[in-house]
Order: sequence, then structure tokens, then C-alpha cells
Amino acid sequence: MSDLVHRTPGWSLPQAAYTDPDVFAADLEHVFAAHWLFAGHTGELDAPGRFLTVDVGRDRVIVVRGEGGALHAHHDVCAHRGSRVAPDVRGQVRAFVCPYHQWVYDLDGTLRSARLMGDCFATRSYRLAPVAVRESAGLVFVCLADAPPDFDAFAAALEPRLGPHGLADAHVVVRERYRVAANWKTLVENNRECYHCAGSHPEFSLSNFDVGVNGDVRTNPRYDRALAAARARWRAQGLPGEDVNFPDGAPYRVARLPLREGFLSETLDGRPLAAPMGTLTDPDVGSLRVISLPNLWAHANADYAVTTRLTPVDAGTTDVELCFLTARDATVDPDALAAVWRATSEQDWELCERNGAGIASRGYRPGPLSPVVEASVEAVLDWYVSALARPARRAA
Amino acid sequence: MSDLVHRTPGWSLPQAAYTDPDVFAADLEHVFAAHWLFAGHTGELDAPGRFLTVDVGRDRVIVVRGEGGALHAHHDVCAHRGSRVAPDVRGQVRAFVCPYHQWVYDLDGTLRSARLMGDCFATRSYRLAPVAVRESAGLVFVCLADAPPDFDAFAAALEPRLGPHGLADAHVVVRERYRVAANWKTLVENNRECYHCAGSHPEFSLSNFDVGVNGDVRTNPRYDRALAAARARWRAQGLPGEDVNFPDGAPYRVARLPLREGFLSETLDGRPLAAPMGTLTDPDVGSLRVISLPNLWAHANADYAVTTRLTPVDAGTTDVELCFLTARDATVDPDALAAVWRATSEQDWELCERNGAGIASRGYRPGPLSPVVEASVEAVLDWYVSALARPARRAA
Amino acid sequence: MSDLVHRTPGWSLPQAAYTDPDVFAADLEHVFAAHWLFAGHTGELDAPGRFLTVDVGRDRVIVVRGEGGALHAHHDVCAHRGSRVAPDVRGQVRAFVCPYHQWVYDLDGTLRSARLMGDCFATRSYRLAPVAVRESAGLVFVCLADAPPDFDAFAAALEPRLGPHGLADAHVVVRERYRVAANWKTLVENNRECYHCAGSHPEFSLSNFDVGVNGDVRTNPRYDRALAAARARWRAQGLPGEDVNFPDGAPYRVARLPLREGFLSETLDGRPLAAPMGTLTDPDVGSLRVISLPNLWAHANADYAVTTRLTPVDAGTTDVELCFLTARDATVDPDALAAVWRATSEQDWELCERNGAGIASRGYRPGPLSPVVEASVEAVLDWYVSALARPARRAA
Repeated sequence: MSDLVHRTPGWSLPQAAYTDPDVFAADLEHVFAAHWLFAGHTGELDAPGRFLTVDVGRDRVIVVRGEGGALHAHHDVCAHRGSRVAPDVRGQVRAFVCPYHQWVYDLDGTLRSARLMGDCFATRSYRLAPVAVRESAGLVFVCLADAPPDFDAFAAALEPRLGPHGLADAHVVVRERYRVAANWKTLVENNRECYHCAGSHPEFSLSNFDVGVNGDVRTNPRYDRALAAARARWRAQGLPGEDVNFPDGAPYRVARLPLREGFLSETLDGRPLAAPMGTLTDPDVGSLRVISLPNLWAHANADYAVTTRLTPVDAGTTDVELCFLTARDATVDPDALAAVWRATSEQDWELCERNGAGIASRGYRPGPLSPVVEASVEAVLDWYVSALARPARRAA
Repeated sequence: MSDLVHRTPGWSLPQAAYTDPDVFAADLEHVFAAHWLFAGHTGELDAPGRFLTVDVGRDRVIVVRGEGGALHAHHDVCAHRGSRVAPDVRGQVRAFVCPYHQWVYDLDGTLRSARLMGDCFATRSYRLAPVAVRESAGLVFVCLADAPPDFDAFAAALEPRLGPHGLADAHVVVRERYRVAANWKTLVENNRECYHCAGSHPEFSLSNFDVGVNGDVRTNPRYDRALAAARARWRAQGLPGEDVNFPDGAPYRVARLPLREGFLSETLDGRPLAAPMGTLTDPDVGSLRVISLPNLWAHANADYAVTTRLTPVDAGTTDVELCFLTARDATVDPDALAAVWRATSEQDWELCERNGAGIASRGYRPGPLSPVVEASVEAVLDWYVSALARPARRAA
Repeated sequence: MSDLVHRTPGWSLPQAAYTDPDVFAADLEHVFAAHWLFAGHTGELDAPGRFLTVDVGRDRVIVVRGEGGALHAHHDVCAHRGSRVAPDVRGQVRAFVCPYHQWVYDLDGTLRSARLMGDCFATRSYRLAPVAVRESAGLVFVCLADAPPDFDAFAAALEPRLGPHGLADAHVVVRERYRVAANWKTLVENNRECYHCAGSHPEFSLSNFDVGVNGDVRTNPRYDRALAAARARWRAQGLPGEDVNFPDGAPYRVARLPLREGFLSETLDGRPLAAPMGTLTDPDVGSLRVISLPNLWAHANADYAVTTRLTPVDAGTTDVELCFLTARDATVDPDALAAVWRATSEQDWELCERNGAGIASRGYRPGPLSPVVEASVEAVLDWYVSALARPARRAA
């Protein structure tokens, strides 16, 4: 598959990577079906029978909390004639009863009963096809591969950092869905650089250091001092001081960044919308950024978190779902909660659509990435090209 | 073409049969363009020049009553530059005048005149390309093949059974059109089993024995007794007692089934909406079921009939037209007329769309058909696979 | 590429020429990307920084008036990551600032500045990819080819004939956009014959001789007399008497035709809507017809002009833009201005859609072109087939 996309280091990808249906099919097979995909939130699955569904291309996966508290994931395809069995996008059931011929599946996916199949029917040899599922620090992931890559190292990075934010007990207050006319990689690239932030994200730039405008974050003394001071404070609260940043080429990052002076959260005025979540006590924890490719990025502030999940539709179309979460007992104004990241996301989708249109045209050539502020785009393109070329492996 | 679809007896078809554009193209060529297709009703063509059109993929066929009473069918394509010539979906004309350059065609398709084509133009060597057409017992069929399969055996089965229902003199009171997001075979399979009836069709199940719930109809004593008694009554009226059921693999069925006790028609309360149609005198004639693959099923009660016609659009999309017919002189409430079969059909389309979505996903595998209640699905899949593999032949 | 479309002289093209995605791709490459395309009007580009955009398939070209008055054309694709840079479909700018990362391009397309690209970045080695552009007599053309075919001979035909109409100083009063469900060639063929005019264009036929109804224009004495008289009058005004009609197979025509007696313009009542445009003094100049394949036809009357521009979308879809222009200082009723050609165009799109539907169906076969009134269709099909087969060349 590596023959599909040739990349020159330092330059953006060739046009076919964003427009060719064959590359898109390879993306679904070698990236989306081979890696862990963010599916939803532990808080949406807080009782036996609570389920959610997640689409990957034409596939739909059911994730459901089992009777004993374990999570199960299944293809949403009846073993009889192939009908969808989940009664809705999310909800709660005692069992999955196929609406077509009433085959009944236990929450763990085993076939409990199938009427009128004759005396020789071996009920227990049928089931909903299983899908790998894991949860960590309140985030739920599935993997369509028969032999999923390692998840443990990611969980080991995530739990001490995101765990204290209490997402496992949070609930989704605002959910936004978008259809973006651009390849999924264009959205990922957009997320991986802040070169565009000063020009496009006024709300985001209120609370966040714009590392692009000030040059490489590693050589900006003002930012360095803020970070050093913040990390000392965070360590004092028991939060790890070091970030995890695409270790050994694995496609994830967990990094805590300070906010600008006077900002305790990514809100318009810097004031938190609610008391700190989970086991946090000090609101001054900056913003924890979680990325898990190919389909998740999230920001966790002390008072709220926001997750962004990508679903590729075709080479030129990507669906996006944003979820804004708070502690269950918090009462927040939904518009204040979504103010910064709804605006920022919608600005990004417009940039991505303009970028996608240009990439698809005859005048497009791979262009030079900035060594100053687009090194993270470079890294993610390296990962993508290697993911197409070999079986998926997360660092163990 | 048989290489396109491999089928294991006892199991549903592989995914490609429902989703692969190449299989769909073969379906259009080897099934739809090779077999007789239901086009419409004799009652819609009750005077010279009355015409209707029927779409098959990108093709449109005109069926028109000729001056002498014979039916003609033509491709709706002008022999000059290819324009559509029929002025509407159905209507009445004296001749077909192409709206582009006014070439004039007689009802039998021959070119009557073409202005400004020069002195050497051989008008009579041009015509609308002909299509085979037949009518029987009020139903009109066309066949796009150059050498259509036999029609006579089907007509011989149809006329003594459906003829007395008087469809040739009936009119269409209600017409419903649907676009269903599923392969046409999924709709056919749905029609060929009542395994799903008890769970999904409350209106239908009022008047119909649900052979699925009670097991194989051939071994259900209660149903057997009702059928035997009914057949005796029908024979006394001159109606044939035996059914015709896919004889020698030919793709049609004409079968009269008894309704549940107290039901004289497939209505919500069992009462007929009108006097018996045609030459019927006794309203107690059960429900005559006509199937002609690939695109027709119909139920004829004593008081009304309903036809269902499929038009494949692409691998995952099928258009459907339902027509509800009564005797011309009957006055019926259109909503009462359509109550049972409009509801039943819409329930089926929802089942088919859920089935189609699951079949199209990675988790789909062919599943086991019930030997008890899905033998008719098995039979129709056998017919389909063999139709793909060899030139069409109806039993002679 | 010539293997894609085989044509029999005297007959319309085979179905694949209108429906096959591979032929459509070849049309984009060998016809649209190889020839001069009409882009817009000089009057829309009347000051430095005034720009318009023109779409060709997935490509968008910016045409902009430079500081010194020269025209520039560029692919609308940033040299960095490929974003669209034009801020709107048309407008006025001092420079093109990419909305993504604020790279700044001068009007001539050179990169003026790119922030945060590091010390080694060679700003001046980047630019918006250039596109060939020419203007003549108020019409602006672009060519996507690296080595465009000759433009000068076309300009030499155009300027003495269209120049006096003053389009360079005209403005667009009415702009209409349509999406037509037919191949672009079906629209061109429709334009190249008036066989259909008497049957379909009552408004057009008020002012125009219908050469189709009266047979070959070259042998119609009444028309011949009107033409001879008109040409004498036009020569007296300094307008060339001879037409230019696809010289040496080049794909353009510039021809002045007389209007019917009593008509001084293509209006409903024959009265001009305004004083003669440009340097014309006598309103009796007939109607100057300009065709430049593959995407322009225009009629210039003394008082107004109308241009029609085609944009192919896919094999079965074409976008069309009509512009109605008058002198800047004229005041006209927009509905009176558009009355004849809006109606005529909409009648044509309906004919084209009916034609396209028939061409796409199984019953279509190439049909005979009229030697009397479709010789121009024959000529344009010859040109098309040869354009597919060899590099584009306009007569020098």
C-alpha cells in the first residue's frame, strides 16, 4: 500500500492522498480498521445495557456495558440475515433483539434465542461479531483489527494525566455534529499546527499561547518561564510534569499546557464555569491535550472537557462530532460551555474546506512545511505514510 | 457472470451481491434486461393512444395502446438525436412527436415524418426501437431482450386465476412511490418470507395466517383445514384449486390463500370495501398472490387488488411503486383501500433499509436461512444465481 | 485518446461520448485544459486588483487586473498547503492573502511574504501557478495548457467585428446560473443548429430568421436578399462584411446576421432597449454571433450583448452562466433585457435534459444528422473528435 502515497520529507502530501478513492479505501483498511478508534465516553455507558454506536465508513460498532460491568463491542450486524440490531444511536437495552426476525442477543453478543430455525440449529454457535474495546480515564476506544495493536502504553500515559479530571463520571452536555467537505487528513493536519491560529481563532487565542506567532515554543523564553512555573505547580498537586508526545512513533500525545495569564479555563473571560472536576482541587491545571490518531483530539480543562471525533465518509468528506463534558453535578450554561471550541472548530472546518478544494485542483503541488511551526504536521504525515505501508503497531 | 456471485446453499448471499457495482450492472443486464418485467395495468391503456412509461435503470419504455387495440412498446428514444419523445409519464396521444425536432412517430413506432432531412432520407427505415410486450389478466409486461423468454406458460397460469378478478377493467385509485435505500434483492427476499410478519406487520396479520409463527404451512393442521375448506368453495365457483409455484424454476407464482376467519378482504376489519370485482360473485375468494420476478408482487382480493413494482436505481437503492385498484364503478375511501398494504409496505422498507445497512458493513457474513420459514428465500436466491449464470428461460 | 470515441460521418456520437466517465476525463484534459476558455468580461476587471474566478472541473482560476493594467491569471491554490486564496467569486483586493496562514501574493502572483517559514526560506521562488490569459474586444480568455494554442487569429477576427460594440466598457446587468442534467456536448450541439428553433423558441423566432424552417440559408432567396442588403449597410458603417466561420478547423466563429424586418434588437418588440453601444451609431447592425469552443457563445446586438459560458461538472451535468451586458451609462429594465435569451436558454436546457436522458439509455443509437440543417453539428463533432485525438492547435 505504500506505493499509493509517496511523500517528500518537508513537503505536504501529493494530491492523490486526499482525493484518490483507492487511497481512501486503503486509509479505511490500513489506518481506520487497524488502529484504536475513539468511540465515546465512559459516562455514556454508566449502567448495564447502556450502549452507544460508532460508525467507521460503512461499519457500525455497538459498545455496551455488560451485566458485570465489563464493556463489550460488537459489529451491529445480525448473524442471521445481516440487519442492524441496535434500536437507536445510543440508549439502554436488556438484550439486543433484531427487529427483523427477533433473534435475541445477550449484552456480551452471544445469541440467546432464534425462533423457528428448526431442531438442528446450534444457537450458541452464533453471535454478534466481536470488536476489541478498551477504556481508559473515561475515554472508550474500539479496534476493528483481529489483532489490535498495543493499548496499554497509551493507557499508562493517559491515566495519571487525564484520570484526575474525572471524565469517567462526567456527562455530555452539548453535542455538535458537522459534515466537512475535506479529506480526514486535512482535518488532522489542521489540528497539528497553530500556524493558522492567530489569523483564524480569536476566541481560542484569548486563553492559549499562540506558539506559532511567537516562533518555536522551545525557544520562546516567555512561554518557557510560564511552562516551568506551571509544571512546578502541577507537580505539587500530584500531576505528572512530563508530557508524552508520539513516543516511538505511536500515534498519541498527552500534554498539559499552561493557559495565558488570568485564564483558568478555555473560556471567553478565563473564569471557570464550574468547580474542578474529578479529584482536581486547584482550578489552575492549564489545559490537558489528548490526541489519539486517526480520530480523536481533546482538551481537558479543570472545569470542562471537549472531545473531537472524526468519521471519514469518502475521500472528500469527513463527519465530525464534538462533545462538551462537565461533572454530572455541575450546572453550566451550554452556550458558555461551547463558546470557545464551537467557534474554533467551525473556523477550522471552513479553513479545511478551502484547503481541500485547492488540493483537489490541477494547480496543487505539495508545498513546503514550515520547519518553525509545522514540525508536528511533518510528524503526523510520517506516521500516516508508514501506517499505510505496514501493519499497525503501537509502541508497547 | 456466475463468477460474480458464489452462493452456499442454506445461507444468504455474499456481500458483493448487494453492494458491488459490477454485480448491479450484471443484475440489470442478466436479470432485468433478460426477463419479463411488470410495466402497468391494462386499465391504464384502455383507448387508442393511451400510454404509460416504465423505467428500468437508465432505460425508459413506452407502452401504448395502438389504433387496432394491440399493445406496442418502444424505447423512449428518438431515432434522430436520442431525445425522450413521450410527453409525460402517462397520458394519451395521437402520435409521438419528438419535442426536439418534431419527428412524428405512429403509435406502432414507425416514423411517419421527419422534416428537413433532405430528399434522400428514407423515412420508413427509422422507428422507435421496439420492446416486447404482453398482457394477461389485466397486467402488462415488457421484455428488453431481443429474444424474450416464454410468456405463454405464465399467462396460462394467470388467466384462469386472476382473470375473474377483472383487473383488465379496473382503475388505479391510489398510487404510492417510495425510494428505498437497499438492493432490490433485499426487497425481494423480504417479500418471500413471513418469518418477520408477526413482529412487524400488525395490520397484515389481522387478515392473513402468519405461516411463519406457526411453522411450516404444510404441517400446520389448523391452516391445512382452512385451506382445504376454502379450496372446495373456490372450486365450486369455478376457480382453480391448485396453485402454480415457480414451476420448473420459472420465476413466477400464482397462489390463492385463505384469509383468517371473519375476513373477506385484506382490510382492517375484514369487511370488503366494494362488491366483488370482475366475474366474481362470492366475496369469499381469499387473497390471490401473484409474483413475477424480478419486479412484481400483487395481492388480489375480491374487492381490490394491490401491485408492487420494483425499479432498481443503483446497488443500494430501489424505487417502488404501489398501485391500489378497484372496479371502475366502485366508490371507495382511498385511505381505507390503502390501509393494510401501505402500512405493511412502509414497515417492510424500514426493515429492508436496516438490513441493507448491515449487509454493506464489514461485520456482515452470509447467515443461515431457516429451513422452517425461509425455504422460499432459498428458492429465489437459487433462481437469481442461475439467472446471472445463463441466458434467461421461462419454463415453456 | 481518439480510441475513446469513434464517429461515423453523418451520424451523432456513440453513447459513451456522453456518459462514460473516462471520456469525460479525456474531455477535461484534451478539450477544456487544452483550449482557450472564456472566463469573463473586461468590464468586470476595470481597475487594479479587480478579480474574477472561473471554474473548470475541480480547478479554479483567478483572473485579476494588475497594477500596470495588464491581466494576470493564476491557479487559485496557495503554494504552501494548497488553500484557495481568492476571498470571493469576484471582487477587488490589494493582494491575495491566503486565509489559512496569511501568505501574501502580489497581483502578478509572486509571493511577497510568508511568515514563520524560517531563515532559509526562498520567498521569491514561490508563486501562484500561472495560467495563460488574453483579452480581446471585451472578452477575457484563459488557457490551462503549458503551451496554449494560437490566440492571435481569433483576436484578429474578433476585434474589428465585436470591438465597435464596446463590450470592454460594458457592465453585467443580469447574471443567471443554471445546472443542466446533460453532457456539455449536448449543449454545444443544441447551440449549433436551429432545426429546433421553430418548435421551441417563440421569443427567439420573433427577431431571428429561422434558417431551419426555410431550408439551407445559402439557398433561401428571401434571406439572401436581406443579408446582402444588410451587409452593404454594415460596410458603409465600417463593419466587416465577411464572417469568420471555423477557419481551418479552429473552434471559433464570428458572424453578423440580419434580424427580421422591423427588429433592431433581439427584444420582444424589436425596439432597442438603449442607444447603440461603443462606437456604433446606427442601431441597425443585426446580431453579431460569437462562438468559441468549448465553452462560449454570445450574441451582440447594438444595444445589449449576452454571453453563455459552460462549465462541465461530470459526464451528465453542466453548469451554465448567462451574462447580459449593456453600456455602463444605459438604464434598462433587467427583465426586458433578459426576456428573449433567458426564455430561449431555459427552453434549450429542457431540450438538452430530455436529449441527455434518452442518449444515456439502452435504446440509444447514433442517429442521422440532417444534411439540410445540421451541418454545423457535424462540423463541431468533427472538431471534437479530432481535439480528443491530437494536441490542441488553433489556426495561426
